[in-house]
Amino acid sequence: MAAPISRRDLEFLLYEWLDVEKLTSRERFREHSRETFDAVLELSEDLATKRFAPANKLGDQNEPYVGDDGKVVLPAEISSGIAEFVKAGLMAASYDESLGGMQLPTVISRASSAWFQAANAAMSSYTFLTVGNANLLAEYGTPEQLDTWVRPMVEGRFFGTMCLSEPQAGSSLADITTKAAPTPDGTYRITGTKMWISAGDHELAENIVHLVLAKAPGGGPGVKGISLFIVPKYLADGTRNDVALVGLNHKMGNRATTNTLLNFGDGTFSPANESDADPDQPARSAPGADPHQPARSAPGADPHQPARSAPGADPHQPARSAPGAVGYLVGEEHRGLSYMFHMMNEARIGVGFLATSLGYAGYLASLEYAKVRTQGRPVDQKDPASKPVPIIEHADVKRMLLAQKSYVEGALALGLYCSKLVDEQSTSSGDEQARAGLLLDVLTPIAKSWPSQWCLEANSLAIQVHGGYGYTKEFDVEQYYRDNRLNPIHEGTHGIHGLDLLGRKVIMQDGAGLGLLAETIGATIDRAAAGEATAEYATDLRKAVDQLVTTTAQVWSAGDPALSLANATAYLEAAGHIVVAWMWLEQLLATADRTGDFYDGKRAAAQYFFRYELPKTAAQLSLVAALDRTTLDTEPAWF
Amino acid sequence: MAAPISRRDLEFLLYEWLDVEKLTSRERFREHSRETFDAVLELSEDLATKRFAPANKLGDQNEPYVGDDGKVVLPAEISSGIAEFVKAGLMAASYDESLGGMQLPTVISRASSAWFQAANAAMSSYTFLTVGNANLLAEYGTPEQLDTWVRPMVEGRFFGTMCLSEPQAGSSLADITTKAAPTPDGTYRITGTKMWISAGDHELAENIVHLVLAKAPGGGPGVKGISLFIVPKYLADGTRNDVALVGLNHKMGNRATTNTLLNFGDGTFSPANESDADPDQPARSAPGADPHQPARSAPGADPHQPARSAPGADPHQPARSAPGAVGYLVGEEHRGLSYMFHMMNEARIGVGFLATSLGYAGYLASLEYAKVRTQGRPVDQKDPASKPVPIIEHADVKRMLLAQKSYVEGALALGLYCSKLVDEQSTSSGDEQARAGLLLDVLTPIAKSWPSQWCLEANSLAIQVHGGYGYTKEFDVEQYYRDNRLNPIHEGTHGIHGLDLLGRKVIMQDGAGLGLLAETIGATIDRAAAGEATAEYATDLRKAVDQLVTTTAQVWSAGDPALSLANATAYLEAAGHIVVAWMWLEQLLATADRTGDFYDGKRAAAQYFFRYELPKTAAQLSLVAALDRTTLDTEPAWF
Repeated sequence: MAAPISRRDLEFLLYEWLDVEKLTSRERFREHSRETFDAVLELSEDLATKRFAPANKLGDQNEPYVGDDGKVVLPAEISSGIAEFVKAGLMAASYDESLGGMQLPTVISRASSAWFQAANAAMSSYTFLTVGNANLLAEYGTPEQLDTWVRPMVEGRFFGTMCLSEPQAGSSLADITTKAAPTPDGTYRITGTKMWISAGDHELAENIVHLVLAKAPGGGPGVKGISLFIVPKYLADGTRNDVALVGLNHKMGNRATTNTLLNFGDGTFSPANESDADPDQPARSAPGADPHQPARSAPGADPHQPARSAPGADPHQPARSAPGAVGYLVGEEHRGLSYMFHMMNEARIGVGFLATSLGYAGYLASLEYAKVRTQGRPVDQKDPASKPVPIIEHADVKRMLLAQKSYVEGALALGLYCSKLVDEQSTSSGDEQARAGLLLDVLTPIAKSWPSQWCLEANSLAIQVHGGYGYTKEFDVEQYYRDNRLNPIHEGTHGIHGLDLLGRKVIMQDGAGLGLLAETIGATIDRAAAGEATAEYATDLRKAVDQLVTTTAQVWSAGDPALSLANATAYLEAAGHIVVAWMWLEQLLATADRTGDFYDGKRAAAQYFFRYELPKTAAQLSLVAALDRTTLDTEPAWF
Repeated sequence: MAAPISRRDLEFLLYEWLDVEKLTSRERFREHSRETFDAVLELSEDLATKRFAPANKLGDQNEPYVGDDGKVVLPAEISSGIAEFVKAGLMAASYDESLGGMQLPTVISRASSAWFQAANAAMSSYTFLTVGNANLLAEYGTPEQLDTWVRPMVEGRFFGTMCLSEPQAGSSLADITTKAAPTPDGTYRITGTKMWISAGDHELAENIVHLVLAKAPGGGPGVKGISLFIVPKYLADGTRNDVALVGLNHKMGNRATTNTLLNFGDGTFSPANESDADPDQPARSAPGADPHQPARSAPGADPHQPARSAPGADPHQPARSAPGAVGYLVGEEHRGLSYMFHMMNEARIGVGFLATSLGYAGYLASLEYAKVRTQGRPVDQKDPASKPVPIIEHADVKRMLLAQKSYVEGALALGLYCSKLVDEQSTSSGDEQARAGLLLDVLTPIAKSWPSQWCLEANSLAIQVHGGYGYTKEFDVEQYYRDNRLNPIHEGTHGIHGLDLLGRKVIMQDGAGLGLLAETIGATIDRAAAGEATAEYATDLRKAVDQLVTTTAQVWSAGDPALSLANATAYLEAAGHIVVAWMWLEQLLATADRTGDFYDGKRAAAQYFFRYELPKTAAQLSLVAALDRTTLDTEPAWF
């Protein structure tokens, strides 16, 4: 199979464009150099292609299931590959040296991750969720929590999850019902059901550290009442905590990532049960159950409702084992969502990056195919006896390859740019830090949504380049497409990010967010305006940015938030295209006057994006600016 | 589950808009009436929802496989459901009474098919391929061929296929290598390999009638050398013909439709083999093979090459059994492609209709979900203690529902409009017949491609409305999305149809094709311009049609076909949006001033399409008119 990521492109973006070597002049990264960066990238490429890629189809075709012993079964290649990843020290890439980490810049660890995500998206999720979890705790945890939970994650002995959604509450976290009851010893007892928990159960690590949003007494209604807890599968003393796997969700893609419905504190693993039941034999594994059939909610059960309700508190239960899973508060009560957003922003850029990596893998697979597959003749070749040509010579196939290239390389540039902002934010102070943080805030909904939409479209084009073959399981592209379809959903749908961008980010600090974005893009435009090869694009992009700014003002002059936000998704799409056009203009400037196929390819893809894609934004922004009421005025009964 | 098609919408389109009752004044349909039409539609709804829909997920999750006896195994519900379809006489819906058919208008049989395609796309393919096959033979077959092959298909005892593609030749039929050797008795011997043959083998019928493109001696190179043959699985006397199943293709969707690699005349079932081998035990079924594993090409085999090469002719073989599968010529030699196009045009509209039906099923499923799923609050509701609302009340969910509605109802209108043109063409003469035929020719690439693109997008939106639930197998929408992804590929990719539309259809007869389309749309615009509620849309559509006509002229002024056709796919997309906007203007006029939710819904969807969708065409057509050279100038080495 084709390499799933272009090393040449990564090097161009990191060194010729973003000049990441300069980061080594910062105190935090002074132990590093281009050599250490390259060593990590080479290691990543090697491990990803040798241990992750071969397990990709395997994991897709052998979905996790719950064995007779109640434990999740995954193909052995998944666990051995992940063990190699841990052994190579990659779990520790971005952590502080004080925690045993490599203290690499985020932009390098992100570039490293592209290899794994492209080679095996589902398998990579276990590691990246753990990294995100540990990063959050590294920021907000107590020294004891760092020692107990974070160090083992850095060492790759424990894995992590984030438990936000519930069956009845996904996008709307205000409505979660999981409860946290304080106990005299300072710990909490957690009861409730969490849905869509990726990597929520498995045997890949000694323990699983769940980060759980729950409501502790005394919080207000809505998101203000939410606190954050560490709820491990096993307590520090090795006792099984009362976190029960209720079922695995069976999905169209990302199959090798277990996706779980978890009950916290339903009594499955409570001390009361231990007396007469083996805690390793949860009741849900009916004897004789078909191991190829998933544990799942009872037939006919409402899938929006937890499959099992937590038992009422037993008044005869001794106080020392109050019902519920043991949880440890992170930070302060009622501030859980703000901590979780630390992880969510990272996770959102990570989801965009995952979508990008899958798009990239599909692009390279279809490129390889287009070079070797012969079919048809040029439209102006009338002699049917002439030899068929490789399909890459057909204009429409080149269109599909250019579209993919412009989407995936544009998205990769955006993901790395945002990652470098994280490094700038973490290693600077004052105004520089504030600007990096603000720009990152504005770009996050785009960095999540745009790749999720357009790199999925790239995967569809990769199938199309393959023709009928692409629709079969003999090739890889149909899996990429199925795997990638998740990314527009989790970590916030497009609709949610549209509201975030137009309803919060661009207007925050009296519009400073949008102002900073426009100013930053404007600086690129100014540089491009001076160049003969780039002046045309500079003009196009300036016009688009001006329209974005004008439209934003018009939208917020409505005096009615519901009307202002009615077309927030169209606004998000248009803003995304403008931002990615900016990324292409940046790349174009970085090619300077260098010659060769690689640079010509960058120029062709930039041209494609400016000619075929950017012009789409004008009509979208006109719609937004017109404060169109079509969606608002349509009554549910009319459908 | 939700009904997969709206009966109310079908009735509106057929009776309130297309006025199909008027067809009963034509001689061919004089035995029919609204009552007979309604009876067929009611029967279809009943059978589709009771016998096809329940087998949809079942067929997806239990892929066909080749049993130890070499026979294809499908779930029993598939064969029993199809048997019900046959028993109800629906296979005979559109055939002539002289052949035992119902002689229904195409527009009614098409409307009937929507139910089955929406309820179970994969299952419906067996029947619709048979109908298409028999329609072709009814047109071009000899009386003897009609009796031997068509009557049993009308009766549903035999099923049919179309065998065009080969492993190395899909879009480029000029390059097929299957050969037809004439024998003294007037029959032919067919040798070669056909790929992607849907319904190519199964036990659902007594016999399978393959229509096979092959090259007979004396034809020119390219498509001119192609002839068409009937190659049955069993000869009329019951002897097994030498048509061997080499393998089943395993696909991301449409799983219950067997998709096969077939060898014709490779000796598996030749008389020479019969002496020492049981013809029902083909060599490929290795003893002890896992019945859950597909018959497939040997590991490491090049998937573009036939898995087994036909053996060389055995010089000891008696002349009476020349090597090869027995084939019967249809019509004249070397005119095979023109006959096949008869079926392909029908099949193309059929594929568009299939895409539409799947889009429709997803729309209605997501609509039902959006009405019952509660989550979040209106953006201007700040009280977190207020009750969550059904998600259909959120503007962005309404956007996703309106988009789906505008795509699937617009596509359904187009499919039925084209089907009515078929009826007008077949029941008229002279100028009326020529105009219906020409308009149908111009619309066919759009009727195939547009629904394949946008009703697939509708399925993606249906998943999005469901959030994480839509990504799971617990709900139906992920299967619709996977099933529908085939439709942009088979019966010609978008790229092929772009070339067909811009390179042939709009310029045929000195531009009469485009002229007639513009004139026909223009008549609708004139009617709409007079109405207060429709004048705005009339203006928008007139502008778009004018741009389409101007662009076409500009494109063909280039004097270089390769340049003219470089952006044919963008042209196809824009033309498709313009045609569907026309369909919406037609529907809007048909609502007249009727009141009620149904009509308000039509108006809202039309408004959505004119405000959100039609404006996309301007930028696309500008690109096409500019004769942009980006794709042409990009060298393969630059990627």
